[in-house]
Amino acid sequence: MPASSEEFARVAPEVCAMIQAWIAHGEDATTPAIPESTPQALRKRIDAAWPMQGMDDAALLGTMQLLLENSINPWTERFMAKLYSAPSIASVCGEMLLAAMNASVHVYSASPALSTVEDACAAQLAALFDFAENADGITMPGGAASNTLAVQTALCAAFDGTYRRDGVYGLVEYLHRNGRQGRGARPALLTSAASHFSLDRAALAAGLGMDAVVHVPVDAHDRMRVDALAAILDAMTRDPSHPNGAPFFVNATSGTTVLGAFDDIEAIAHVCAKYHCWLHVDASWGGAAVFSPAQRSALLRGSGMADSITINPHKLLCVTHQCSFLLVRDARVLREHAIHAGYLFHERGPVVDHAMKTLGCGRRGEALKLYLTWCRHGTAGLAAHIDAGLAVARHVLAQIQACPLLELGPLAEPLFLQICFRPVQYGSATGSAATHKLHAALQAERQFAVDFAPTAQGDFMRLVVHPRTPQHIFSALLERILALLRSDM
Amino acid sequence: MPASSEEFARVAPEVCAMIQAWIAHGEDATTPAIPESTPQALRKRIDAAWPMQGMDDAALLGTMQLLLENSINPWTERFMAKLYSAPSIASVCGEMLLAAMNASVHVYSASPALSTVEDACAAQLAALFDFAENADGITMPGGAASNTLAVQTALCAAFDGTYRRDGVYGLVEYLHRNGRQGRGARPALLTSAASHFSLDRAALAAGLGMDAVVHVPVDAHDRMRVDALAAILDAMTRDPSHPNGAPFFVNATSGTTVLGAFDDIEAIAHVCAKYHCWLHVDASWGGAAVFSPAQRSALLRGSGMADSITINPHKLLCVTHQCSFLLVRDARVLREHAIHAGYLFHERGPVVDHAMKTLGCGRRGEALKLYLTWCRHGTAGLAAHIDAGLAVARHVLAQIQACPLLELGPLAEPLFLQICFRPVQYGSATGSAATHKLHAALQAERQFAVDFAPTAQGDFMRLVVHPRTPQHIFSALLERILALLRSDM
Repeated sequence: MPASSEEFARVAPEVCAMIQAWIAHGEDATTPAIPESTPQALRKRIDAAWPMQGMDDAALLGTMQLLLENSINPWTERFMAKLYSAPSIASVCGEMLLAAMNASVHVYSASPALSTVEDACAAQLAALFDFAENADGITMPGGAASNTLAVQTALCAAFDGTYRRDGVYGLVEYLHRNGRQGRGARPALLTSAASHFSLDRAALAAGLGMDAVVHVPVDAHDRMRVDALAAILDAMTRDPSHPNGAPFFVNATSGTTVLGAFDDIEAIAHVCAKYHCWLHVDASWGGAAVFSPAQRSALLRGSGMADSITINPHKLLCVTHQCSFLLVRDARVLREHAIHAGYLFHERGPVVDHAMKTLGCGRRGEALKLYLTWCRHGTAGLAAHIDAGLAVARHVLAQIQACPLLELGPLAEPLFLQICFRPVQYGSATGSAATHKLHAALQAERQFAVDFAPTAQGDFMRLVVHPRTPQHIFSALLERILALLRSDM
Repeated sequence: MPASSEEFARVAPEVCAMIQAWIAHGEDATTPAIPESTPQALRKRIDAAWPMQGMDDAALLGTMQLLLENSINPWTERFMAKLYSAPSIASVCGEMLLAAMNASVHVYSASPALSTVEDACAAQLAALFDFAENADGITMPGGAASNTLAVQTALCAAFDGTYRRDGVYGLVEYLHRNGRQGRGARPALLTSAASHFSLDRAALAAGLGMDAVVHVPVDAHDRMRVDALAAILDAMTRDPSHPNGAPFFVNATSGTTVLGAFDDIEAIAHVCAKYHCWLHVDASWGGAAVFSPAQRSALLRGSGMADSITINPHKLLCVTHQCSFLLVRDARVLREHAIHAGYLFHERGPVVDHAMKTLGCGRRGEALKLYLTWCRHGTAGLAAHIDAGLAVARHVLAQIQACPLLELGPLAEPLFLQICFRPVQYGSATGSAATHKLHAALQAERQFAVDFAPTAQGDFMRLVVHPRTPQHIFSALLERILALLRSDM
């Protein structure tokens, strides 16, 4: 093999130039957001050319170009289907650095700088959420992974440590010894009916089973009804053989997937304290509101009372995929995950190897990308980013309200960054059918990607007003939608 | 904000140049592998300069440089402490592409090319392992995550689907109904005493508890004793109240962490068939031997009989962290993880959204990095890479054997890529103490990083002969060790 520095010097600038051209292409107003995607054709082409022998630079670069051309171009800003955006350039550079370092952040000795950056970022985030000095946090590969680790951590922390050694089998025995009976001796997790499906999956993954999840009703704005939560917890606690089981964990959502609703953390925290439940806050999407002092007190009041919090900087903060943190109020709960592995963990003293604090082993240094994004924009810049996004969302809402051809769906109260709407009529279609017709028409044009979602009032287009996306993009989208509707009147 | 293409054009080439200089610096024979690491000092410096306001280009680049200087430099090739190496330049470029695409590979519509690449890579890997057409596979964030999903998948597939809805509680009831009693009704997982701790953690994570793991004895070369496995399974099966529980899952390791031992998959598969156990192969480290036809038949015979296999291309194949695949012989078992989420999954037809096949949600397109590495080197090049590494390992072993100042520890049989050795005597220290003294001396010099590990014969230096590392590096290491020993005689 030639020296890597030579190969890098030869190839990396070409890749840089290719990416730069792709970004610039995306910034052109006529570039489709969605590629002319034919999965079967691309798969055939890849399979047919499977490399038995290696490729030279030109062939390798050609392959990269082919893949770019068949990918969503986030730089158009017109891919608005998901809760993320084009990434910050600082975090793109962070990925380049991570690749060159190629370190696993599982033990400190393999990744001194990256371990340190992770601890520093976790501490800064924890402070924003009003956690005190003895908090801790780690990155996980995605919000679902963070939520799942929160459930597993709560299980380990509760029930006198039974879960770690004896699993759910031990918990059921423990609950029997404590007076619970039959199905009432099953540990149960409560979360709102509007929360993310990763909570259901966390229950499955942790061995509780999906029936261990109790879905608490929501109000018309998809906020958990705290009165209902209290009533359910009271009934489950009073009846030792309650069919819903024994409550130990409540999830509050800060920024639901469809409406962007924020549960009332403070009120829920008081209920959790009364019924001795772990309070987790899934702030995967809305947690970044913590950067804005105004939004923090409006949307996240009481976050310091939570036992654990998930936040995904790869969503609102334009950090590249993935970057999710699980924060805990009490550092000791993560250290319960430590396990003896004589071939791996050798640290003594103040440093704690990060793989001691998870249920995994090797880890990417995902915190670096948040750190560099934070460095680039500053706490002040990220606060302004959030505030500006909310201002745009209010403006887009006003635009839609002013348009008689469109009807609004349910909205978060106060409004966050999602707006559900649909055509009052599209050709002969109305209601959910009008939504699906509009979704299909936009997909076919490939200029805008907007997802649809079910709500209590039927299916609506769910527009994500990501703070990264400029106002004029939303205006262009609405113009295009109105043109489509008018052409089919 | 300025256009991203401008910012990228300004900053990315600078980052490229910085990385290129760092790689070249690493290639210099005098560059320390380990930074002069003072975690407290670095943390202090980071905390003191926490960015309330944003940074200009110069400050941002300076921060990046600081982090590089405080990181392990893999390009020295002298960081031999872990089961990975400097990455392939193709996979470094793959990370750049992933960052620019910033797609989540959870639904096809968000990542058409990356979803397709992942499916193609999984199919190619599955074929190498002798899986038939209806196999499937997905990337996971690390080998521990793959192993954990294997346990969860096996739990879902067994026991008539009880686990998904009712968790371990349901399994225990199910086993009671099927004649198991007391602790004999606990699902149990078997793995060798030399296997990775992630199997224990998988049992914890899945709600079985760490006591659900039965560690099967190994022979002098750390291979699972298949006779012991059969005897244990027989006893557990015969006795409905056996304290070890009811066996459902056996893990065979292909390439253990300390010695690089390969369990006899074929023999274990026959035992698993007899006792109706799921056979998982943790080939995180050694699985890449599948690229070499000679090694495949010597080390991985019977892999096609497994139910699931973990392989981490980020270990032996020089792909950047992370890149791990969980492969399954029967595609249907992963599809059991599908869950209804009306706001997310809209696909109809032949495409299966990847997040339907895991217990997570958002996912990085990690397969791209394997694909580009495969393109660069070809199947033939990767086979040669494995074979050359094994030839170097045999040569290094001969060098150590020829040296009277060093003694060998236990070795895999046949030899793989790890060699355990220690000084016969270092100053007044012998045995494990000599190992620890040598480890400390090398750490202090910072030129070579070699880990130590416990074995049945005490603690030894565990040298990883990664195929990426040139022969002359090992010769230099041994020379340096001998000089250290001679200077303290």
